[in-house]
Amino acid sequence: MNMPAQDPIRLAIAEAVQQVHDTTPMAPSFTNFVTINLVANAQLACGGSAAMSFLSNEFSAVAALAKAAYINVGTLMPSYPDALRAITADLKESGKPWVLDPVAAGLGATRTNILMDMRHNPPTIVRGNASEIIALASMWGLIEGSSSNGPEGVESADDVQSAIEPARLLARFLAQHSPDGKAAVAVSGETDLVTDGTRTFRLPGGSPLMTKITGAGCSLGGVTAVYLCVAEPLIAALAASALYNVAAECAVRTLTSYTKVNPDTVALGPGTFQPAFLDALAAATPEQVASATLLEDK
Amino acid sequence: MNMPAQDPIRLAIAEAVQQVHDTTPMAPSFTNFVTINLVANAQLACGGSAAMSFLSNEFSAVAALAKAAYINVGTLMPSYPDALRAITADLKESGKPWVLDPVAAGLGATRTNILMDMRHNPPTIVRGNASEIIALASMWGLIEGSSSNGPEGVESADDVQSAIEPARLLARFLAQHSPDGKAAVAVSGETDLVTDGTRTFRLPGGSPLMTKITGAGCSLGGVTAVYLCVAEPLIAALAASALYNVAAECAVRTLTSYTKVNPDTVALGPGTFQPAFLDALAAATPEQVASATLLEDK
Amino acid sequence: MNMPAQDPIRLAIAEAVQQVHDTTPMAPSFTNFVTINLVANAQLACGGSAAMSFLSNEFSAVAALAKAAYINVGTLMPSYPDALRAITADLKESGKPWVLDPVAAGLGATRTNILMDMRHNPPTIVRGNASEIIALASMWGLIEGSSSNGPEGVESADDVQSAIEPARLLARFLAQHSPDGKAAVAVSGETDLVTDGTRTFRLPGGSPLMTKITGAGCSLGGVTAVYLCVAEPLIAALAASALYNVAAECAVRTLTSYTKVNPDTVALGPGTFQPAFLDALAAATPEQVASATLLEDK
Repeated sequence: MNMPAQDPIRLAIAEAVQQVHDTTPMAPSFTNFVTINLVANAQLACGGSAAMSFLSNEFSAVAALAKAAYINVGTLMPSYPDALRAITADLKESGKPWVLDPVAAGLGATRTNILMDMRHNPPTIVRGNASEIIALASMWGLIEGSSSNGPEGVESADDVQSAIEPARLLARFLAQHSPDGKAAVAVSGETDLVTDGTRTFRLPGGSPLMTKITGAGCSLGGVTAVYLCVAEPLIAALAASALYNVAAECAVRTLTSYTKVNPDTVALGPGTFQPAFLDALAAATPEQVASATLLEDK
Repeated sequence: MNMPAQDPIRLAIAEAVQQVHDTTPMAPSFTNFVTINLVANAQLACGGSAAMSFLSNEFSAVAALAKAAYINVGTLMPSYPDALRAITADLKESGKPWVLDPVAAGLGATRTNILMDMRHNPPTIVRGNASEIIALASMWGLIEGSSSNGPEGVESADDVQSAIEPARLLARFLAQHSPDGKAAVAVSGETDLVTDGTRTFRLPGGSPLMTKITGAGCSLGGVTAVYLCVAEPLIAALAASALYNVAAECAVRTLTSYTKVNPDTVALGPGTFQPAFLDALAAATPEQVASATLLEDK
Repeated sequence: MNMPAQDPIRLAIAEAVQQVHDTTPMAPSFTNFVTINLVANAQLACGGSAAMSFLSNEFSAVAALAKAAYINVGTLMPSYPDALRAITADLKESGKPWVLDPVAAGLGATRTNILMDMRHNPPTIVRGNASEIIALASMWGLIEGSSSNGPEGVESADDVQSAIEPARLLARFLAQHSPDGKAAVAVSGETDLVTDGTRTFRLPGGSPLMTKITGAGCSLGGVTAVYLCVAEPLIAALAASALYNVAAECAVRTLTSYTKVNPDTVALGPGTFQPAFLDALAAATPEQVASATLLEDK
């Protein structure tokens, strides 16, 4: 059942969105080359600020000015294992919360080494698709063996349902190592799943077009880090997923309205969806985000 | 003369487009930073899947899951000569076909070393502009001296016509080293040219706006690799060029129709062309792609 | 007071824009990964050509074919300090003018080392926000201490007014080291400021949406380098800023007109602004650019 309008969770989501609009928080990112532009533009569109860096001294200098950070292991370069080891150690030492997108977890020796290292200086929020969450939970010894069918490159080979238990265990592990004992895991899929290890929420909605552009997940991680600057992990993850669902639906409505005005257009494609989605990210009000469909598993 | 509708080449193109729609093949890419986002989005739009990587262990792990791959030497980094040597050797050993975009061939010592190395582990398809094809054929000793006027940076200084013979010789060389004895070369220009070394095809059409956005050629290479997952080299190269011409023309029609509905717009520019082009890539049917203008040199 | 229509400065701006349209000059770029695509597309849209490179031998090979170049220190990699030292020395030796965007000047040890090195082989034009201009002038000992409030990541923490004197001193320093004794500094903000060290101009206009997309400043630097291929530094900087203001205003008019035709749209957002802005860059005539609001400080 959709959560009531006055539920404290919804109020906290609205508050987080409003605070981002009011304070323009900057969350620095160490992210992949494919979608780095979309991550930055999504962070700006949601009301935050962006700064990208790949050297540990540069990243730590920016992170010192920020309240949260974002790391995405998409396109690795030879210097990244050392840089990420230093950066995650710095983040731990300064007690700064951060979001990890474990892109293609399980694929390639360098990526596995980097993700294994992060077990010692873990993030506050992990956001990934089902295969990535299962692979990371397995890699960190939180579940037995690997029940994952993937990865198939960067796409998920598992459905969100199969990642529920790994996500909960992962969230509890993160919370144990979190500065304030709080953490969250977000699993992206047709219905997004967000858990803090105790409570578990589902966010249906959005649009299948989100899977037809590259970077929907990566940029969601970046926006989650912006919200993490102003809210606790569970609320940050919920607010970001809610915003993405609301904005995707708004973008589809806008593109559909173009087709009505001008039947000659080939609208509702991935090309025009991305700019319409960024417009919608920027236009969404705290009330609209907070009223996204939100179900709690009991 | 435009080839007849029931020509086996056209049927094979339609079949390749349909198979990509049905099976969502993933072709990993090692590509430049300028257009990496467009490459990924074009691969998704045509119905395939994308995964970008720059480390040899990562690339080989993804390539092991794929039926074809894409390498583009646009923006080189210090680690690339070693990485590309290992990756191309791996691709040869596993008998996996791949597409090369020899961006700016002839320019700079590192690029020349990398392309000279690839003579030993050559691709299955080369796609480039006329200057790049001539430069590569010359560099590999397939033509005497260099009849190229270029390169002028990344733009072609030669016309497609002057690249016909180098393209044919290059295609025959690639075929000799190909796992199944088949290969192709595609020369992009006002009229695209595709040859397998024996037969030579021309694909007029598309739009001059393709030259006003960065990455039309790079992303065509990535889409060619997606088709190479499901078709032989000649058909993959023809299908990709045909798709690009059909989609560019569709995008121009869409943008022109906007201008009719709303005369105040500055449409038909490179900015709105790119999203409209991606929409058109996603909307093109196998029949539409297979009915692109296609001429054979006799 | 807005400068008169027949002022020699305006005529020179129109001439520069026309020459770029006529000769398609290529200005190679060493730039950051976040906005590299927008830099290239903006250079193409304004009528120039683009080529991106990160290795000194590659960059110098392209720069030898070009009349000006662009360096942006946004996302640094471990190989950049050595590469940039070699590239800037090559540019000095060949007497080739270039544009520097000192992104986030003052932040991080590697960035500071790179920018300190450039004091010995300085650019011809520096374009940055107020904080970056102040930080660079301070770093190079041109002003006492640092009166900067920033940087706050990549955003400016100072207003343009506070950067006037640092900008003038910086421009005079650059002119002393310039091949032909000419140089310019451009400070981006709500009102852009351009100075050659003697005369100082202000360009109000543009759109607040320019601050809502990533890369407005980076791509302005790339377009400035294209104009620097055909014009002296002061005119190149003025022409680029004038073009950006004119194009931003045109893009806003276009998006507003969409909303009138189709009230269901969420237009005027950052997502649709970027493609509309690129369209407007491509559509702007020399006369339109030359008639931008342009004030001279007396």
